[in-house]
Amino acid sequence: MAQEPSIETDRAPAVGELTPPDRTLMGPGPSDVHPRVRRAMSTPLVGHLDPSFVEIMDDVQELLRYTFRTDNEWTIPVSGTGSAAMEAAIGNVVEPGDTMLVPTNGYFGGRMASMARRAGGEVVEVDAPWGEPLDPADVADALATHDPDVFGFVHAETSTGVRQPDVPELTAAAHDHDALVIADTVTSIGGVELRVDEWDIDVAYAGPQKCLSCPPGASPLTLSDEAMEKVLAREEDPRSWYLDLSLLEGYWGEERAYHHTAPITNVYAIREALRLVAEEGIEERWARHERLAGALKAGVEGMGLEMNAPDEFWLPSLNAVRVPDGVDDGEVCAELLERYDLEIASGLGDLDGDIFRIGCMGYSARPENVIYVVTALGDVLESLGATVDPGAGVTATRRALSE
Amino acid sequence: MAQEPSIETDRAPAVGELTPPDRTLMGPGPSDVHPRVRRAMSTPLVGHLDPSFVEIMDDVQELLRYTFRTDNEWTIPVSGTGSAAMEAAIGNVVEPGDTMLVPTNGYFGGRMASMARRAGGEVVEVDAPWGEPLDPADVADALATHDPDVFGFVHAETSTGVRQPDVPELTAAAHDHDALVIADTVTSIGGVELRVDEWDIDVAYAGPQKCLSCPPGASPLTLSDEAMEKVLAREEDPRSWYLDLSLLEGYWGEERAYHHTAPITNVYAIREALRLVAEEGIEERWARHERLAGALKAGVEGMGLEMNAPDEFWLPSLNAVRVPDGVDDGEVCAELLERYDLEIASGLGDLDGDIFRIGCMGYSARPENVIYVVTALGDVLESLGATVDPGAGVTATRRALSE
Repeated sequence: MAQEPSIETDRAPAVGELTPPDRTLMGPGPSDVHPRVRRAMSTPLVGHLDPSFVEIMDDVQELLRYTFRTDNEWTIPVSGTGSAAMEAAIGNVVEPGDTMLVPTNGYFGGRMASMARRAGGEVVEVDAPWGEPLDPADVADALATHDPDVFGFVHAETSTGVRQPDVPELTAAAHDHDALVIADTVTSIGGVELRVDEWDIDVAYAGPQKCLSCPPGASPLTLSDEAMEKVLAREEDPRSWYLDLSLLEGYWGEERAYHHTAPITNVYAIREALRLVAEEGIEERWARHERLAGALKAGVEGMGLEMNAPDEFWLPSLNAVRVPDGVDDGEVCAELLERYDLEIASGLGDLDGDIFRIGCMGYSARPENVIYVVTALGDVLESLGATVDPGAGVTATRRALSE
Repeated sequence: MAQEPSIETDRAPAVGELTPPDRTLMGPGPSDVHPRVRRAMSTPLVGHLDPSFVEIMDDVQELLRYTFRTDNEWTIPVSGTGSAAMEAAIGNVVEPGDTMLVPTNGYFGGRMASMARRAGGEVVEVDAPWGEPLDPADVADALATHDPDVFGFVHAETSTGVRQPDVPELTAAAHDHDALVIADTVTSIGGVELRVDEWDIDVAYAGPQKCLSCPPGASPLTLSDEAMEKVLAREEDPRSWYLDLSLLEGYWGEERAYHHTAPITNVYAIREALRLVAEEGIEERWARHERLAGALKAGVEGMGLEMNAPDEFWLPSLNAVRVPDGVDDGEVCAELLERYDLEIASGLGDLDGDIFRIGCMGYSARPENVIYVVTALGDVLESLGATVDPGAGVTATRRALSE
């Protein structure tokens, strides 16, 4: 029934100035954004078909290739957050009737499954407990059993703080069975060793708001020629028009034809964030994350806490720390936010209530942030009655940083 | 085959500082962004689950309701550009087997059709030539013939500069046939009279980079309770996980559950852009667009050019101007860009080569921009040998502005 809006809607809302609190972001992302990236976002816009924007697009593609360690022509920022890049990968590569093998060892394997089903695919699983990586032998078995068209794995599981080792072994096994490999690199890109070409990954997607320290809104995606051939040879259109890579190819490829209005400001931002990666050097950046997160890890272990992941698959960008007995994890996070303006996060799914998730990503991977989070966490845990030694934690971090 | 990236990729790209040209944006969007919105985008981030961000989300929803003229609870910014909001609307409301009636009188009706098909729907059409609105009698006939589940129309056709009049007549006809109505309001929201509730529109989507003068990246969407009931009662999941409104409801509704990382900075931006709407007043803003675009129209007519749309469906936010004989439209646009740093656009589809598309949107709907575009267009046309009277154009604009 047609009707006038209520008096409430009729009146212009009295919404005040934007004054968010000044947080230190040490959770699972977003991380603190580099001031140069924030400045880039305040740059006046040019049109999305402006010749000068085409040059900016070229820059971003070149910088993304460098950061992914790939020569892939099909390397673009997708117009949306990391999940949009994820759905662009799965929704284009998985065709109706295809089978996709996905992992069960974290939150994001489940999301892969949901996206693959919506794309019209069958989903089969390879199991590992939350908090552990996939075992290459299990992956080989699953490939032999199910003969999938596509195999997806999570390189850096944000929900569990686990780094998947043995990637070349996984991709070799998949290729032995003619399966294309899609890697979730949301929390590894720009922070943890990732070599798309050398490791023979066919498709990788990522988020900008983790180790690239760029606000979410334009998200890295790369596809090998072989993967893109499958996409371009599809019998049926992908189910999303917005994320259809054969159409996006017209805009990001030679033709520069209008598809949708690119998120210009987010492209400015990721360009600047990737420029910072190039200036630092990708290998130096991986080393910095390991060094800084190592100091964080030394601090939490020094105060008497336990890491959830063993050292061999510790994920420097996302540190999963066991919640000590007798403490409510939600209360700790709330206190840190309220008393210290500091964001860390609780666990999810099978690890709900068991872990804290402490990020150490991009511009947040700095000594001041690491010292602050170790200090604040120790103080809050002690104040809530946990058996920890905050002083020993800070000392361990201090020593690790001065090594 | 696993391989090292080329030497080119191995080397960090030497990409220089971001220094785009200083354009005046009078094309079909993006429009010039208000300085306050650009400043909001340089604000440091809080997390997407931060209690302070929840308040910001509430503000945005309230301001969007005001701007759409609706009480709809389901009013959110979608995490992507306008096409993402469009696909969220169509991909959720259209179920496999549903029939959607779409218009053929412009570029965006064709996009609606493509999205509806990908959602599993059947598409039927109601015809009108490019450059004309739909005739309510034709819509009523098409509704009677096809009995569609969903009827889509474009309120402000960016490709043709046509405003669809008689919206309440169209929605009443659709509701007589129990069809839900989806309106494309990308180029009308915040600039041209639009009354979602009073006009009985069930679903409306929009873009932020037109009359809201906000960078693209978070895009308005509103659904009536009845439309949302259809979405929540679907037998099959929508084909996009990213745009699944039943999942987004968990984040934007009471629960505030994690779905995907919101594009925080784009939410900051649209909040500020909508705050500017509320400060100005929505009806005053519509009046400003009509007044400024009227001066623009007076100028182009004054110099001897012809508008493509008759006055009764002239679209103030997007002025379609006939290309005068003997002039190449592409050359004119290129000259304006090169000599005046000024963006306007050519025609698309059936009107390719026939029209210039000159926007007058949001922060670009100011006297300085209007005077500049009329002056520059007259000068460039004259220099390219067209029969125009640039002086008379400027005089007509000046008079209209001083009325």
